[in-house]
Amino acid sequence: MSWTTPKKAILLSASAEGGTPLNAFDNALLKMGIGNANLVKLSSVIPAHLEWLDRLPEIPIGMLLPTVYAEATASEPGEQIAAALGVGFRPDHAGGLIYEYSGHGDRAYAERMVRRMVEEGFAMRGWELAEFSLGVAEARVKDRPVAAVAAVVMFPY
Amino acid sequence: MSWTTPKKAILLSASAEGGTPLNAFDNALLKMGIGNANLVKLSSVIPAHLEWLDRLPEIPIGMLLPTVYAEATASEPGEQIAAALGVGFRPDHAGGLIYEYSGHGDRAYAERMVRRMVEEGFAMRGWELAEFSLGVAEARVKDRPVAAVAAVVMFPY
Amino acid sequence: MSWTTPKKAILLSASAEGGTPLNAFDNALLKMGIGNANLVKLSSVIPAHLEWLDRLPEIPIGMLLPTVYAEATASEPGEQIAAALGVGFRPDHAGGLIYEYSGHGDRAYAERMVRRMVEEGFAMRGWELAEFSLGVAEARVKDRPVAAVAAVVMFPY
Repeated sequence: MSWTTPKKAILLSASAEGGTPLNAFDNALLKMGIGNANLVKLSSVIPAHLEWLDRLPEIPIGMLLPTVYAEATASEPGEQIAAALGVGFRPDHAGGLIYEYSGHGDRAYAERMVRRMVEEGFAMRGWELAEFSLGVAEARVKDRPVAAVAAVVMFPY
Repeated sequence: MSWTTPKKAILLSASAEGGTPLNAFDNALLKMGIGNANLVKLSSVIPAHLEWLDRLPEIPIGMLLPTVYAEATASEPGEQIAAALGVGFRPDHAGGLIYEYSGHGDRAYAERMVRRMVEEGFAMRGWELAEFSLGVAEARVKDRPVAAVAAVVMFPY
Repeated sequence: MSWTTPKKAILLSASAEGGTPLNAFDNALLKMGIGNANLVKLSSVIPAHLEWLDRLPEIPIGMLLPTVYAEATASEPGEQIAAALGVGFRPDHAGGLIYEYSGHGDRAYAERMVRRMVEEGFAMRGWELAEFSLGVAEARVKDRPVAAVAAVVMFPY
């Protein structure tokens, strides 16, 4: 993280139940394969010429991973939450943008929100939006706490 | 960021409107020149013998930048917000302190709050406060969401 | 922090009063010996084969320190808060987990919460819980703002 620029990334999402909201969040990270890393939260821009991975590389337990993430948790029976990351790409892959939504609502609402934010972010920069990727998860409380998480995890190699 | 100690820094602030609170935040970062970096949020101490910059060095898109920041957003017409960083310096430049305020209020209120926090932080450490710098932004909602942001961005070179 | 894996760590906790909630937080960090570092907040897993320190190594002013922390602040007279980190260890020290609680309640409540979260986190991973450490602080507002903080600070050396 020393003022470096990440080289690779992966877009992940999951929802899960747990005995507490934090355990539900942890369980969602486990499903995503990043439950045994130390996440360092980043704001939301995509480095230029990033290679996107289809599956996670091996991660040593406790490794520090720079990650953009959106997360929502809920405990009230019937409560509906969603978390989404919308990723916009420029035609020449010279950078891109990530926007997040987390809170009440369903998958469709979260997707609309992040798509709108990506479009505005590109318009503000005078960038052409060539491609849009979505990571989204939703959950509704039955009797135990739930979490919805979407993440872009970045790697130097 | 690997347990290194930053060498240079710059104090920035801006406010902006946007279609959503997150876009307003993004637009404020763009005005400040750091809208295309990945910010890593820091707590609030100034390394010793830091050189303060008057303008931003070139930043590759997506670079990881350790940053202390205060940010407030609002959406209700008439709502008034401010964000401020108060930076206190020791006489010998052997370190310093940064305190943040973000929330309701105007520029003058935010300045009073951070000045008071800096003074207390210095008093608690038995340090002499030789100099005080302020980064502050305020915004009032007309019809679109607004954000106010103040930041100290740190560099290794 | 560049995708490295920490080598050493220390578990700390303290509570303090201050003129504002942020100063109270700062004063708690000062008591813990980390008031003059830049904390980078981490999520909550323990790297494998981490060596645990009994006292802090020397920390240059402003050094970037990856830290898992739980913190609560309060300002209303009579308000009672606590912050805790529960640290679970595997028998072979091949990793472990940290869970946090912060909010209303006393030391005993915060301890029960983090113990329960650690147990569930280990059960979800099919790990045996060989050892449990607790860092906890509580505070009750008399007339000035208070903070309670628990932290695991990580080092590369």
